[in-house]
Amino acid sequence: MASSEYPASTHTPRYLTGDAAGIREFLDKFDVFLFDCDGVLWSGDHLFPGTNETLDLLRSKGKQVVFVTNNSTKSRADYVKKLEGLGIPSSAEEVFSSSYSASIYISRILTLPPNKRKVFIIGETGIEQELRAENIPFLGGTDPAYQRLITPDDYKRIAAGDESLLDPEVGVVLVGLDFHINYLKLALAYHYIRRGAVFLATNIDSTLPNAGTLFPGAGSMSAPLSMMLGGQMPVSLGKPNQAMMEAIEGRFRFDRARACMVGDRANTDIRFGIEGRLGGTLGVLTGVSSREEFVEGEVRPAAFVDRLADLLGCE
Amino acid sequence: MASSEYPASTHTPRYLTGDAAGIREFLDKFDVFLFDCDGVLWSGDHLFPGTNETLDLLRSKGKQVVFVTNNSTKSRADYVKKLEGLGIPSSAEEVFSSSYSASIYISRILTLPPNKRKVFIIGETGIEQELRAENIPFLGGTDPAYQRLITPDDYKRIAAGDESLLDPEVGVVLVGLDFHINYLKLALAYHYIRRGAVFLATNIDSTLPNAGTLFPGAGSMSAPLSMMLGGQMPVSLGKPNQAMMEAIEGRFRFDRARACMVGDRANTDIRFGIEGRLGGTLGVLTGVSSREEFVEGEVRPAAFVDRLADLLGCE
Repeated sequence: MASSEYPASTHTPRYLTGDAAGIREFLDKFDVFLFDCDGVLWSGDHLFPGTNETLDLLRSKGKQVVFVTNNSTKSRADYVKKLEGLGIPSSAEEVFSSSYSASIYISRILTLPPNKRKVFIIGETGIEQELRAENIPFLGGTDPAYQRLITPDDYKRIAAGDESLLDPEVGVVLVGLDFHINYLKLALAYHYIRRGAVFLATNIDSTLPNAGTLFPGAGSMSAPLSMMLGGQMPVSLGKPNQAMMEAIEGRFRFDRARACMVGDRANTDIRFGIEGRLGGTLGVLTGVSSREEFVEGEVRPAAFVDRLADLLGCE
Repeated sequence: MASSEYPASTHTPRYLTGDAAGIREFLDKFDVFLFDCDGVLWSGDHLFPGTNETLDLLRSKGKQVVFVTNNSTKSRADYVKKLEGLGIPSSAEEVFSSSYSASIYISRILTLPPNKRKVFIIGETGIEQELRAENIPFLGGTDPAYQRLITPDDYKRIAAGDESLLDPEVGVVLVGLDFHINYLKLALAYHYIRRGAVFLATNIDSTLPNAGTLFPGAGSMSAPLSMMLGGQMPVSLGKPNQAMMEAIEGRFRFDRARACMVGDRANTDIRFGIEGRLGGTLGVLTGVSSREEFVEGEVRPAAFVDRLADLLGCE
């Protein structure tokens, strides 16, 4: 949904496909391009034709390219492998994932007391790797000790605040996509938050696109906790939350007026760029949003193309 | 929370503890007493003193006693065992559980096409037993085949609508408390609902009281699905939903004006009785709600006592 705090778009986005002069003019406005990935550069395991040539074009013009992903199951290093597996040369410095965003937020923005620095994770290895890189201690996550059923003894120990089950040094609960989600982890996360831990999420996407359809997303992992907590939502460190934009800006130190967000979803990617007051936004029609959504919707990009590779038409 | 459709209570509930004449007058108004259990008859594994004597008193006066529970993990037969384990003589006919309520709703109220009669269960054995008693075919639930991680192959098969994973005869998804909740079950339930299955829940309690604290309740199991479905809530067959009252009435054929709901929670038990237009409601202070909530809250019982056994003071 569109942000209720932001006025609806009223302009007509510029359609750049086939407009060589328009593309040149558009590209010249920006030094940095932030790319949503799935639906823009590829779909699933299928790289769109011309993706690499387009990235090469931008790089040859001296543009900084950043791959921005809400995927929390992968670390930046994992993501570079994925990019390279699809044939896209890249470096970890160009990747900005929600697991990295969350780790930076915890280490550099949250001010946790020294005895409350541990993070209880609902999520996969991507989060663990990024927390480790920031020297943040953690528990939960992929630890096999948590891959089990809750027992009658667990109820009593949790109720009693048994420190062998509820580590008193946990000051943060971080929830990302977890293929190993279970009742015990949800119960522990709930009790950590009740005992004062900060409630964070790598992102709150309700669904995860895969194989051409949808599966439970990271937001579906935090939904039970929000319900148990009477509606309390986690602070999300992924798109379209501006905490992620701030983290990207902190990392790349770019001029927002000279940056452009490229994405296929009006309500997440384009909104992320507009609310981040970037100089521009570019929609592509190879993913979720339709031409109608871009042209008549509440959240409209500054410009759009049928497909990313249409930018090659500037030459 | 109180129902937004129902006017807030404004009367002053009658306090019956120590008021022998008041208790006699109150009891005489009713032929049927619907009891919430935990917090009223017992707490956890601790039977409140005088519970049995009070039930005996009511029975000796010819009152029908019904135990009404949102606990979906147990069948009526299981629940009788629990009652007897606590020393309360009872029969399956006196027990009305949300798993039974859901089964009756599916078999007698939902009109499913003949080729859409199967139920996909997120939940425990109580649901399975009650569905079996109504001759309703089911899958999921406690079947060990679903106690596994999702695989890359599953994504493709689900996307393709592979009938060995997505049974085309499933017409209902029924969600109760499931200690074996996992990603695969959530993904399958979501896809069944997307393909047209009716979305039901035994109840939508966000939390489950246990060992003196709270754990994830059945509502926390359906919350991820509601989020994925853009906010669609399941039809709940438990308190305070009136579908449960209708099922109880269908089973016992009582006169609502001569029935009284007894409970410890204003916003679920007492509300359930008021919205069901029962002749009366009785609050007890041995559970969740406080005297202030009963006397000054938005949802107030007709009368209240400190503890159920105070009703023995009529003699």
